[in-house]
Amino acid sequence: MKLVIGNKNYSSWSLRPWLLLTQAGIPFEEINVRLFHEGFAAEIARYSPAGKVPVLVDGDVTVWDSLAICEYVAERFPERQLWPADRAARAYARAICAEMHSGFGDLRSQMPMNVTAVLPGMGWNVAVQRDVDRVARIWTDARERHGAGGPFLFGQFSIADAFYAPVVSRFATYGVHLPDAAKPYADFILSLPSMQQWVEAARAERDFVAADEPYRTAPDWDAASGTVR
Amino acid sequence: MKLVIGNKNYSSWSLRPWLLLTQAGIPFEEINVRLFHEGFAAEIARYSPAGKVPVLVDGDVTVWDSLAICEYVAERFPERQLWPADRAARAYARAICAEMHSGFGDLRSQMPMNVTAVLPGMGWNVAVQRDVDRVARIWTDARERHGAGGPFLFGQFSIADAFYAPVVSRFATYGVHLPDAAKPYADFILSLPSMQQWVEAARAERDFVAADEPYRTAPDWDAASGTVR
Repeated sequence: MKLVIGNKNYSSWSLRPWLLLTQAGIPFEEINVRLFHEGFAAEIARYSPAGKVPVLVDGDVTVWDSLAICEYVAERFPERQLWPADRAARAYARAICAEMHSGFGDLRSQMPMNVTAVLPGMGWNVAVQRDVDRVARIWTDARERHGAGGPFLFGQFSIADAFYAPVVSRFATYGVHLPDAAKPYADFILSLPSMQQWVEAARAERDFVAADEPYRTAPDWDAASGTVR
Repeated sequence: MKLVIGNKNYSSWSLRPWLLLTQAGIPFEEINVRLFHEGFAAEIARYSPAGKVPVLVDGDVTVWDSLAICEYVAERFPERQLWPADRAARAYARAICAEMHSGFGDLRSQMPMNVTAVLPGMGWNVAVQRDVDRVARIWTDARERHGAGGPFLFGQFSIADAFYAPVVSRFATYGVHLPDAAKPYADFILSLPSMQQWVEAARAERDFVAADEPYRTAPDWDAASGTVR
């Protein structure tokens, strides 16, 4: 299986299936494309008709879109139990993943994922706070109802954790204050070796995507190579 | 099973699971809430922690979000084969549903679903056209690869058809020109008895939701009752 992903520093959609496969110990070949870089459109078109990362290629099957990739992986490796086994818990997990997939527009647009940046206070507004409150509530509710005392949202690791990992990263970058009931979960996800591996790789990229950092000047950015000097 | 939905004239998210259940012949009780109407927030909070329609209530299981509801229904009624049986076709179907769930922002915002309106040309711009082209391409590709000559995207009716039905309605309302390869599918979906039933019910609502019709004045709108006189 090949997983095509964008810049680790910026691509929240890429982090989800990457974390799912890595955390579940499923081997895959990683193909990196540079977002918004010259040649990006042509490169991604080789893999996906939707022209976006991430894309999973498994023999003659191509799956694009992070949620569809996760569903595909869950079906392909049933023994890993990537969705909760209980019917009600599974419905809850799918609901919060789908809610993340289509929602949280304020949080996403105001606090774009930027793994290596430290920007406390940036992007905050009342609408973003509503999204933050809802995320904190989801984590607390899921763990209370279906967590069975485990450290993940549904006890064991599941697709839902992969889906909320980019938000955990955003909260760290923008110094978002979390209620006491929600913070331990965020800290736990950040401490996962797979998550740390992603962060280290993001740090090594030294790429600057202006479209993803509208609030930032980059005087040391080399336009010719598209990298920070 | 109970399905909580918004106004049939406006709620594209509601149409998806409603059409799925209706077209598949699965009995359910319909609960109608009026979008943006006084009391909406309190009413929907009784059913869903996300505060949005649609919501499916099945005994002690509550599922919100249209995609999660469709996955739940597919699992609950496996004999209906609501996802394609073939693995590659199923992955393709899930990918286009997830793509619709998180994407097509220009088409959605510029051409909000408005089942009973006739507004040819309204909302069109170049970004919307890119979305239209992508939808037409999806329909054509899905049917060529996995349609097996049937009238639906994957031959038989599936969740993918339910997911693209609101777009079919939008194309009719806004008089969007479709390529010859895509138009027969749109016409076929509009002609389905279940779809016609939805349209007739939308016509009977006579409700006016200003937030969904920013381009429209409604001189005959009675603010007190929230209905057209």
